[in-house]
Amino acid sequence: MSGIAPGDVLGILGGGQLGRMIAVEAARLGLVVHVFNDDPRSPAFEVAARATHARFTDTEALAEFAGGCAVVTYEFENVPVAAAEIVERHALLRPGARALATAQDRLVEKTFVADLGIPVAPFRAVDDLPSLEAALADLGRPAILKTRRFGYDGKGQVVIREGDDASAALDAIAHAPAILEGFVPFSAEISVVAARGPDGGMAVYDPCENRHEGGILARTSVPAAISAQAADEARAIASRIAAALDYVGVLAVEMFLVREGGSERLVVNEMAPRVHNSGHWTDIGAATSQFEQHVRAVCGWPLGDTARRAPRVVMDNLVGEDAHRWREILSDASAHLTLYGKGEARAGRKMGHVTRLSGGR
Amino acid sequence: MSGIAPGDVLGILGGGQLGRMIAVEAARLGLVVHVFNDDPRSPAFEVAARATHARFTDTEALAEFAGGCAVVTYEFENVPVAAAEIVERHALLRPGARALATAQDRLVEKTFVADLGIPVAPFRAVDDLPSLEAALADLGRPAILKTRRFGYDGKGQVVIREGDDASAALDAIAHAPAILEGFVPFSAEISVVAARGPDGGMAVYDPCENRHEGGILARTSVPAAISAQAADEARAIASRIAAALDYVGVLAVEMFLVREGGSERLVVNEMAPRVHNSGHWTDIGAATSQFEQHVRAVCGWPLGDTARRAPRVVMDNLVGEDAHRWREILSDASAHLTLYGKGEARAGRKMGHVTRLSGGR
Repeated sequence: MSGIAPGDVLGILGGGQLGRMIAVEAARLGLVVHVFNDDPRSPAFEVAARATHARFTDTEALAEFAGGCAVVTYEFENVPVAAAEIVERHALLRPGARALATAQDRLVEKTFVADLGIPVAPFRAVDDLPSLEAALADLGRPAILKTRRFGYDGKGQVVIREGDDASAALDAIAHAPAILEGFVPFSAEISVVAARGPDGGMAVYDPCENRHEGGILARTSVPAAISAQAADEARAIASRIAAALDYVGVLAVEMFLVREGGSERLVVNEMAPRVHNSGHWTDIGAATSQFEQHVRAVCGWPLGDTARRAPRVVMDNLVGEDAHRWREILSDASAHLTLYGKGEARAGRKMGHVTRLSGGR
Repeated sequence: MSGIAPGDVLGILGGGQLGRMIAVEAARLGLVVHVFNDDPRSPAFEVAARATHARFTDTEALAEFAGGCAVVTYEFENVPVAAAEIVERHALLRPGARALATAQDRLVEKTFVADLGIPVAPFRAVDDLPSLEAALADLGRPAILKTRRFGYDGKGQVVIREGDDASAALDAIAHAPAILEGFVPFSAEISVVAARGPDGGMAVYDPCENRHEGGILARTSVPAAISAQAADEARAIASRIAAALDYVGVLAVEMFLVREGGSERLVVNEMAPRVHNSGHWTDIGAATSQFEQHVRAVCGWPLGDTARRAPRVVMDNLVGEDAHRWREILSDASAHLTLYGKGEARAGRKMGHVTRLSGGR
């Protein structure tokens, strides 16, 4: 059988902790990992067989990197689409440049999801003060102004409440192209991590429930405290999005759960065309981790079992100085610690995570 | 609190699959890994932040390597003791040179274990034909002639049966210094993997049962099909050996189970001062893998939980062309595959392993 095999080179664009965890699982499956990143101090470099330190605008470096890879993937959605397109000319890129382009722009992404008939928060494009004022008139307050591009971990967002100055909100996002989103009165934030293979086969993990603090994911709990019907619908939404993108790899879809008069409905918040922080619980919590699953998918290998290994799994992020508690965490027999090898525990920086399995809720 | 912390450098002498798996777990705990080995194509180099390719007789390279490490460990017991002693002058070496010296020589090892009052197979030192003939007269036939040094995976061993020529057996081991071991009529081969910290604390995994094929470990099953009493005794033996060596790190002790007239007794076969193939089942089969446990121990960190994650765990080695079955193994939802990144699937070469959890025996 032809195709990608152990011993082949898997390329990763980006070198953060997600790339690091993909690299480790790829090595475990016998692949040779080549990481490309623009930061010489990339956590993924430390566990990769090969490393290229170059800019994402360096056409030659990208072409040389891709030329040596059987397949290339990416670990963050802000890889420039131009760089992805260069890679695609020299190697298989999975997921492809289209998923990247869709996920990079909130307006494109929300339009894409809404066009599939999947509920999203009401939204309007905002380019300037007049369009913002018109959008506020349409959607009411509170509403959230978000930059179309380069937002993550709550960055590039500002809430506009009753009485707030619209032009100050535009200043806060530096007048970048934006969207205004209507407020969704959600009772829970959930996400679904799913993998899709090149043959269209899907493997979907149990929906998980996320708690954010200061815009940063703090805790993921699995299973989410939602009805079986809502869980099924969440899985179906992720599958429809993956299929519509002809997606290959692991994908995460964040959703709001809205409870109204005894019924539950889901509203898609955003998607990430990559392994995702809310999937870290799978490292020991599922039969196949999201990182291994991503490697299997992008290599065109059989997808792994997504079964949970325990009735309940909880993943806590270690943000900033949380990581200084490493010794205490190692003393907890129920804790499985992962640190990302980042030197400095700056405030708001994701330094590691802890996964715990338990018998019940 | 002083001591070794995430961000520090862990050195590994040796670069095979055991070093590779230690390196990955060390990185997961935030350590920077530096691998020292004499083979440029070392599986562990591919997942390590730093690599030194030099001979174990290169005093300068060893000193420079050790000088940059907070702690150094080894992944095979044939590291020259002289090299270990150089490292010990520049860094903490765990386990120490003494464990290495003891394990490297079957005569020293067996004498050490027997002196602890722990049963071993009857043995005699063999240096030449007269001493071999005297030993055969004492111990009877069949008996096993084993080189004192550099034996592994059944190499350097020859069985002497009724009618076999003693001098031909000496030729077969190239007249190397040897021991003759009396035959032990065992009904099972078991091993115990245990960790000991610098404070003397121990964490001992469940005894496992091993099946060898052609002198190479084929399958490890946990728990071993032995009485609770024998299992307790096996654990106690491993703990006594570790304590007597003032050992720090993971240690494996292989034992024979002998059934006689309804009772069971244990006879120590050999020990390995390192993580061990018969402990690979812990990768997904135990709360803490032996690789993580070894890192915790040599860093002086709290030892992890050794609890099994399932009623039954089975680990199968992939030897030689077995590894060509990787796609079939990936299709098995119950299988967790690890490949070592070795290029060529030579006969008798350990290429990877598969661990499976199941509900019962």
